[in-house]
Amino acid sequence: MSQISRALSGEITPEMEVVAGQEGMEPELIRRGIAEGTIVILCNNRRDHANPVGIGAGLRTKVSASVGLHGGGADIGVEMKKVDAAVEAGVDSIMDLSVSGDIDAMRRATIAAVPTPVGTLPLYQAMNEAGDRYGSPVHMTVNELFEVIERQAADGVDFLALHCGTTMSVVERAKQEGRIDPLVSQGGSHLVGWMLYNRQENPLYEHYGRVLDIARRYDVTISLADGMRPGCLADSLDGAQVEELVILGELVRRAREAGVQIMVKGPGHVPLNQIEATVTLQKRLCHGAPYFVFGPLVTDIAAGYDHINAAIGGAVAAWAGAEFICYVTAAEHIGIPTVEQVREGVIAARIAAHAADLAKGIKGAADWDLKLSGARKKLDWKEQIALSIDPKRAALLRKERSGESTTACAMCGKYCAMEVLSRYLGATRQSC
Amino acid sequence: MSQISRALSGEITPEMEVVAGQEGMEPELIRRGIAEGTIVILCNNRRDHANPVGIGAGLRTKVSASVGLHGGGADIGVEMKKVDAAVEAGVDSIMDLSVSGDIDAMRRATIAAVPTPVGTLPLYQAMNEAGDRYGSPVHMTVNELFEVIERQAADGVDFLALHCGTTMSVVERAKQEGRIDPLVSQGGSHLVGWMLYNRQENPLYEHYGRVLDIARRYDVTISLADGMRPGCLADSLDGAQVEELVILGELVRRAREAGVQIMVKGPGHVPLNQIEATVTLQKRLCHGAPYFVFGPLVTDIAAGYDHINAAIGGAVAAWAGAEFICYVTAAEHIGIPTVEQVREGVIAARIAAHAADLAKGIKGAADWDLKLSGARKKLDWKEQIALSIDPKRAALLRKERSGESTTACAMCGKYCAMEVLSRYLGATRQSC
Repeated sequence: MSQISRALSGEITPEMEVVAGQEGMEPELIRRGIAEGTIVILCNNRRDHANPVGIGAGLRTKVSASVGLHGGGADIGVEMKKVDAAVEAGVDSIMDLSVSGDIDAMRRATIAAVPTPVGTLPLYQAMNEAGDRYGSPVHMTVNELFEVIERQAADGVDFLALHCGTTMSVVERAKQEGRIDPLVSQGGSHLVGWMLYNRQENPLYEHYGRVLDIARRYDVTISLADGMRPGCLADSLDGAQVEELVILGELVRRAREAGVQIMVKGPGHVPLNQIEATVTLQKRLCHGAPYFVFGPLVTDIAAGYDHINAAIGGAVAAWAGAEFICYVTAAEHIGIPTVEQVREGVIAARIAAHAADLAKGIKGAADWDLKLSGARKKLDWKEQIALSIDPKRAALLRKERSGESTTACAMCGKYCAMEVLSRYLGATRQSC
Repeated sequence: MSQISRALSGEITPEMEVVAGQEGMEPELIRRGIAEGTIVILCNNRRDHANPVGIGAGLRTKVSASVGLHGGGADIGVEMKKVDAAVEAGVDSIMDLSVSGDIDAMRRATIAAVPTPVGTLPLYQAMNEAGDRYGSPVHMTVNELFEVIERQAADGVDFLALHCGTTMSVVERAKQEGRIDPLVSQGGSHLVGWMLYNRQENPLYEHYGRVLDIARRYDVTISLADGMRPGCLADSLDGAQVEELVILGELVRRAREAGVQIMVKGPGHVPLNQIEATVTLQKRLCHGAPYFVFGPLVTDIAAGYDHINAAIGGAVAAWAGAEFICYVTAAEHIGIPTVEQVREGVIAARIAAHAADLAKGIKGAADWDLKLSGARKKLDWKEQIALSIDPKRAALLRKERSGESTTACAMCGKYCAMEVLSRYLGATRQSC
């Protein structure tokens, strides 16, 4: 029985208890959110979870980092270093988006290594294996695709990214829309290429019942991927994106009826003034399902700094109601991120998530800032560093600057203007 | 005659023509904005400007970087490297916030070196000189303060940060409010310490006519600094901040009546959900004067990453109507930034400014993104890099990744799913 089925029958599961404890909320509130579909718990029933993670309305905004084997030079050891860096930086989940190499080994190593939920995008592996088997992914059979989905679920993957809503009608719409970048979702592009070559409807839509059957058996959460994710601001909220979102809403309803936990993936490239509309539309069309956003990026021109770009969009999106942020690294649009870029990407997304949680009044969020501000007032450096989002980095920068004056000087004696001020206001004496 | 006086008399000055050209707007619109006080042009009449810069409603959002001598290890040569880095990164103005050392030399070197407007905070130098002369800044005389203000204006400084609104009543309000961090503005703290020691009202308020007289003679723009800038989210929009803002509104009106260009400095630490209210309040109370925000930072806990933190707040503030962003570097709250942190701080603020300009529909903003997206679709790397916000960085990251596959592979031949897709949608074939 999945968490949603048990929630609907009134049961509070051990996983709901754990999530309630993490969030400082009543377990009954978590149960109700899961029953209504506004909360999911990422927790494959084949996996012994150190840390099931709840995602959804009223909960702390979560952050996911993606790694994976990609191209000739890819190496599981290097990717696992990125996994470790992401976990150390406080990430809430890892996605293994391997597209080549020993994909099974990479996934299993990730699942074994991390305390967080793990997500995958099975189409990549199915396409890769079909390429090896037949010389091209277009010859992949539908059964082969489902075999990979089940294999990944059976390994303990907690959430599966699946482009179930990228139907022929949506592809036709994209063609009519005259998009600048018609398709930037890599998985979506492969899938649509397969559909066009084989002149077949999207198998993940046509055989959605099989998707739901696998998801229910392992209690895998479906992450409905948006094949029509806009790849530039000019394509944001166009007919293709919105038509697919309407279909995703239909698929959310069917998943809930089947006792399957589901969330929806979102863009992408969105100008600041369209973020709230995008989130509101997703919430309405997808019946309050948790929204997992990729960034969003608020400009197209920030290659080399897309982690900063995405932090702007992520903060505004999460404030508007998105609950799960997929990090974007500084290497986005250029190449595969380094270990350091992975770490920075996680921190940038966590800053965005926390800023949104402060604005939304998520329980406990403001306490953190208040504690740090108290330490700052007291010039208590040890405490300030310990409370910083990345204590290692804060300590390093502080150490590099140890020669600079950071406490009060001794020049003016009793005529120190700062001392006079401090006595009056009860403030800590600042440096001159 | 100042730009505002000439604008009020119907004249379109050469500086207005230059700004109109930069912004792609009619000169008459610039003239009207200056006459109404919603636009200022930073252009001291003693300085031969390569580049007068307009700031205000309807114009591209501008970015300022601060440098300066600070403490024993400070060095003009190092600070000038930061100036160069900021200019190379596309900054719109430089503030020299030196508090010690040869402040005159640093300021003059900056003015000589940069094509952008230059701002200063004269109180630092006045306090520093009083410290040298009398053993403590509290013994500074009012005449000495005004002598420094005039010296800096006569050197060609384009805008002067002055805490004219931090009156005794505002300080008393701060005491009553029970702020977490009563005063975090360094200049404001020194000034208030002086006021309390000497039991005198703020000389910049009491002798505001002298301030206006100097500003008018050199056509220096006043940047009304907010001594009550909140230093943590919990203090945002409290009585002290708002009472000071009311006084700043009074001072804006008096400046305009005196033919002086003026803008208002803003916070600081502001939660996402108070940014729009903060900007709206400033616009109303200060009669549409341009708003120069410091960040704002949307959380207190991001030491080591405050450039990212400030990019989130800056984008939202500029979208809400702020027109000028003071950068925040990764070293904020820890120490003095390095050259590299200055460069990154400028880029982060420029991303925020541009994201806001896209959302506000500022002329020309969307064209940049559209051009880059076109190059991305064509996989034209040369063009993508040239159009990136920091071409050097984009090129470097691209070069580091030159081993990775970034163009289409040759594996599948005519059965390539991406090739099938490209033909159908008219898209560029992506990599597998």
